[in-house]
Amino acid sequence: MNDRIREILSWYASENPGIRTNLARMLNHGRLGGTGKMVILPVDQGFEHGPARSLGFLEAGVSDYCGEIPLILKCNNHDLLNDERDPISAVTSGVSDALRLGCVAVGFTIYPGSAERTEMYQQLRELASEAKAAGLAVVVWSYPRGSSISKEGETAVDVVTYAAQIAAQLGADIIKVKLPSQKVELAEAQKVYQKYEIPVSTLADRVRNVIQSAFDGRRIVIFSGGAAAADEKFFEEVRAIRDGGGFGSIIGRNSFQRKKPEALKFLDTVIGIYEGSIQ
Amino acid sequence: MNDRIREILSWYASENPGIRTNLARMLNHGRLGGTGKMVILPVDQGFEHGPARSLGFLEAGVSDYCGEIPLILKCNNHDLLNDERDPISAVTSGVSDALRLGCVAVGFTIYPGSAERTEMYQQLRELASEAKAAGLAVVVWSYPRGSSISKEGETAVDVVTYAAQIAAQLGADIIKVKLPSQKVELAEAQKVYQKYEIPVSTLADRVRNVIQSAFDGRRIVIFSGGAAAADEKFFEEVRAIRDGGGFGSIIGRNSFQRKKPEALKFLDTVIGIYEGSIQ
Amino acid sequence: MNDRIREILSWYASENPGIRTNLARMLNHGRLGGTGKMVILPVDQGFEHGPARSLGFLEAGVSDYCGEIPLILKCNNHDLLNDERDPISAVTSGVSDALRLGCVAVGFTIYPGSAERTEMYQQLRELASEAKAAGLAVVVWSYPRGSSISKEGETAVDVVTYAAQIAAQLGADIIKVKLPSQKVELAEAQKVYQKYEIPVSTLADRVRNVIQSAFDGRRIVIFSGGAAAADEKFFEEVRAIRDGGGFGSIIGRNSFQRKKPEALKFLDTVIGIYEGSIQ
Amino acid sequence: MNDRIREILSWYASENPGIRTNLARMLNHGRLGGTGKMVILPVDQGFEHGPARSLGFLEAGVSDYCGEIPLILKCNNHDLLNDERDPISAVTSGVSDALRLGCVAVGFTIYPGSAERTEMYQQLRELASEAKAAGLAVVVWSYPRGSSISKEGETAVDVVTYAAQIAAQLGADIIKVKLPSQKVELAEAQKVYQKYEIPVSTLADRVRNVIQSAFDGRRIVIFSGGAAAADEKFFEEVRAIRDGGGFGSIIGRNSFQRKKPEALKFLDTVIGIYEGSIQ
Amino acid sequence: MNDRIREILSWYASENPGIRTNLARMLNHGRLGGTGKMVILPVDQGFEHGPARSLGFLEAGVSDYCGEIPLILKCNNHDLLNDERDPISAVTSGVSDALRLGCVAVGFTIYPGSAERTEMYQQLRELASEAKAAGLAVVVWSYPRGSSISKEGETAVDVVTYAAQIAAQLGADIIKVKLPSQKVELAEAQKVYQKYEIPVSTLADRVRNVIQSAFDGRRIVIFSGGAAAADEKFFEEVRAIRDGGGFGSIIGRNSFQRKKPEALKFLDTVIGIYEGSIQ
Repeated sequence: MNDRIREILSWYASENPGIRTNLARMLNHGRLGGTGKMVILPVDQGFEHGPARSLGFLEAGVSDYCGEIPLILKCNNHDLLNDERDPISAVTSGVSDALRLGCVAVGFTIYPGSAERTEMYQQLRELASEAKAAGLAVVVWSYPRGSSISKEGETAVDVVTYAAQIAAQLGADIIKVKLPSQKVELAEAQKVYQKYEIPVSTLADRVRNVIQSAFDGRRIVIFSGGAAAADEKFFEEVRAIRDGGGFGSIIGRNSFQRKKPEALKFLDTVIGIYEGSIQ
Repeated sequence: MNDRIREILSWYASENPGIRTNLARMLNHGRLGGTGKMVILPVDQGFEHGPARSLGFLEAGVSDYCGEIPLILKCNNHDLLNDERDPISAVTSGVSDALRLGCVAVGFTIYPGSAERTEMYQQLRELASEAKAAGLAVVVWSYPRGSSISKEGETAVDVVTYAAQIAAQLGADIIKVKLPSQKVELAEAQKVYQKYEIPVSTLADRVRNVIQSAFDGRRIVIFSGGAAAADEKFFEEVRAIRDGGGFGSIIGRNSFQRKKPEALKFLDTVIGIYEGSIQ
Repeated sequence: MNDRIREILSWYASENPGIRTNLARMLNHGRLGGTGKMVILPVDQGFEHGPARSLGFLEAGVSDYCGEIPLILKCNNHDLLNDERDPISAVTSGVSDALRLGCVAVGFTIYPGSAERTEMYQQLRELASEAKAAGLAVVVWSYPRGSSISKEGETAVDVVTYAAQIAAQLGADIIKVKLPSQKVELAEAQKVYQKYEIPVSTLADRVRNVIQSAFDGRRIVIFSGGAAAADEKFFEEVRAIRDGGGFGSIIGRNSFQRKKPEALKFLDTVIGIYEGSIQ
Repeated sequence: MNDRIREILSWYASENPGIRTNLARMLNHGRLGGTGKMVILPVDQGFEHGPARSLGFLEAGVSDYCGEIPLILKCNNHDLLNDERDPISAVTSGVSDALRLGCVAVGFTIYPGSAERTEMYQQLRELASEAKAAGLAVVVWSYPRGSSISKEGETAVDVVTYAAQIAAQLGADIIKVKLPSQKVELAEAQKVYQKYEIPVSTLADRVRNVIQSAFDGRRIVIFSGGAAAADEKFFEEVRAIRDGGGFGSIIGRNSFQRKKPEALKFLDTVIGIYEGSIQ
Repeated sequence: MNDRIREILSWYASENPGIRTNLARMLNHGRLGGTGKMVILPVDQGFEHGPARSLGFLEAGVSDYCGEIPLILKCNNHDLLNDERDPISAVTSGVSDALRLGCVAVGFTIYPGSAERTEMYQQLRELASEAKAAGLAVVVWSYPRGSSISKEGETAVDVVTYAAQIAAQLGADIIKVKLPSQKVELAEAQKVYQKYEIPVSTLADRVRNVIQSAFDGRRIVIFSGGAAAADEKFFEEVRAIRDGGGFGSIIGRNSFQRKKPEALKFLDTVIGIYEGSIQ
């Protein structure tokens, strides 16, 4: 275990060794192993996006890759057939499933801003409590959404940082948020951004602001690459995540909605940026 | 056990041997035993359709056929006395009943698209978890329905594939959906169907699309024959299910709303098509 | 243990020695140790106020200060992304977390006046019951709020005293309320204030009224300093709390939204007022 | 995952993917990773052999090696201060500890032949059931011992094979036995060995006999190297384990009761024999 | 927290912050606070030694010293009315009592060597598991005793080190043993002491040997001062504990079977030796 990984694990000193073991399994895996960066591939998005827009399935494929890939079991899911203003995901699996499948972590989505958030926070608390006792890490997707937030507000920098902080305080070991825009949504927040002159003009600045919001940089925060965009624009975002101190990306449709050789080439560039071999 | 059955069971490697035993009992039963196809007879439809339009009852008849027919206990039921826009079925039995009656599987209906879907998904998760621990297979009826879906949308090919995938990801070992129409409901899905030129013009194409959506062909998916129609039209549909790689049919009213000799002749043709003795 | 601390602890004779031990740990800690006064620093306000307006985090920092600072784990939290009229906080942690982290107390917010208050009171009752059996003290933030109270009514003196009394009767060992205004909200209360000529004209009078409302002065009641204001105005309030028999302050943003030397100077004055070295 | 590891994992098809993941973590670890062989280092023998004759400790060291070494938590322990004829170990930890510490397996000793064996078998059954549900592999030390077995009988080839089989049938995923001698203890067994002319004259023959006794070669069986002996004699035994199809060794005192460079040289030879680079 | 205390707490990184908080409360208390040494006063020995030979009682006195003295609740007790050869203590209290009384730790005695040891080890395991989840430290008195050990063997250096190691491996955070004699009891141990020339001729040597046996010096081990002896002889032993790296003493009858001023003078010397102000 190199010094960077040891440093990251030191932030989790109040967690038990099982959780730190599973974090280490993620942080030491694959080509980015040891860099403190990670790229997560969400194979099981069928529930969230529908079959024509997703890749694979964990339950059926897990036996082929036993112990070779650190797996995260997403324990709640939301489908697109309803378009309610205040969403809540269905809890569809739990800690016993994650253990049975040999996973290193459980995942859970919360929608801060939804009228249903209290229910979700409490579901997460129970899941996290049980998962941590079993040595599993907890990954939280924190997506502000709901009737009290404007569409643009969902990615406003103050709202995204707030979402990251809520996830951290609810017990997330790893936090996943969307890349923030330059917009500041809440009036109270605006005052503080101005008073302290917090820089948010570049994407790297905003990533830095998000990282700082999650226990002052002591939680792993990763970002979603969003829907398929021009490759170069995507790589620009990855550079901003790297330069702002972000820990990596979740890349789903942008990789597996390509032919395999193209997808591998695409991921090769992303990983190259994170490991520093590509500027 | 022949190679085809062995192949099908290999898709369930992450399930315990009890579940695979019960799947094998279904797959090796009767005239279609060993073909990988199955025809399920829903005897107990009184709750769903009313007494004048149903056949039998499991609890009272099971003793006469102990061990002779693989039984599935449907654990939730919906009646027709209410015509709510966002339906949810009542949970009316459970794993202990299925075990007591010697069943090989439990059945459960979900209505993706209903405002009540989160509750149903969580009920299914609990039932499936308990059933699987007891070695019972899980059969899921996945019928899109609810205030956010148009009547035609319920059988749109993208919606039916989505419904199949949701069922698979919620833990269904066997999935039952309706035959899909050529319609594509969701705009996001439409883009993908066009971009990748996914063929949906024939019924066999669409069956193939559904099969592929359930863990890439690694879950047993069967189709309902719908309401009684002209026999030849029905047989055409069975041929499309077969040619598209479907695993079989559930045939209720179309068989038992006939006189017994006619019903047997009707089923003889269906089974002949599935086993390949009839083209 | 000096006589004042012994006197305060005597009010808690019906609590078990574990609770009194933890109260003593708070009352004997730091520069105000032994005075019967306390200043609580809410480090973990990110959930309540957002990252740009908060300080720290308990879970990640606790290992660095094991046993050096008496910790209170706030067990429910409310965020600002929704602005509902009848708020309820999400229960986000519990007694097992507080014990695992080595805390001396659990904290909980109630909103008397909210339509959701019954649910909150029952959550508090369960938490307090479990916490007290484990020897943990119970700190209750009692903030009148909801559709049936006017904005001004939230800090009306009769409403604040009522809130303090409700907290005491729900089992709070330490009660936190806002500083009350001169307004009397409820007509019934107005009659009593007039009949008995209860003095409420000065802030110290009103503090005295609040203290008296919590088991006749036999519960520790502390006050929040509110949002950042002119320093001298703030110190005036602290003097009023002291002179009215209040037990101290919770000071969050007013200290940590300053540079560290200024914050320490600010707190030095506050503590000086409480210990009597500053008039 | 190479073909050999895939083959070994196929023997565990009735176990859940979590168990297979943890077996794979062991089989793919370190220099013997991928060979199907393993050498286990029992660091925590102080309880069994006393402090002057043991190496380390798991609880205190685990944080330094998070995720780097697959750990087995031995859940029962026996000390040497009593010399009873019918031993039973004390259950000193369990599944929740193994999960908390990030282990891949639990370990348990049984003493077939002890008057207390029934109690031990039942303890093992409970532990194994709980461990497997949590995805942990089960390692069983099976040491015949007790008032009904002679000292020489403890390592008689028929007794050791019997012990391996009992362990397999009690749910062991990995079995640890002592190297068997040429002696056949039981009269009934003697008849069979003679009738079927089972070869037991060389140590490799006897290892082969043990391997065959554990589900016909479909369970991982490893052997203890015994107390420190002349190195060349020890290496001879390792060759016999390899040639007889054994899966590896547990080497405790023979490695760590040396100076570190000597111990590493010693282990280098052992591993060389197993991987085939040394004949 | 000074560096020495921080160093000691680092040995407990696999324990939760609550346990480390309570260890810190002990290590930072009183005149020896911050030195890494401690002197424990066993007030509640009436059960063990009878009323004429003991001091006080925890349950009745605790209210007078709330939060001023870190308390350990001894959870099993043995009386002198039976003089069985294989002793076992009665479990007389538990974690809920310790929490209710505001204790920092639970205590438990084991008698390695007793035929009843398995039962005691399992009782300790359950108590320790529950205590640690509640953030309480675990103190184990490990006294070899029983029909298979000679009277002299009870304090033989190899037996005492073995007893310390067993306690550490059963989860003790703090271990209490008797001062060891020069005798080596077990033949197996004798070989090792000779082969590695482990020094045991002075008491400081033997203390060092005991400390090393408990996770290589990474557990707090304290020693009992034995029955009242000549003061100077007692102080000599304290010096040996200090010089051998021991962490302190438990002193019961030797202090409270004196008049108060004499007892305070006696303890003053002991503490002076530990803090280094007296040579």
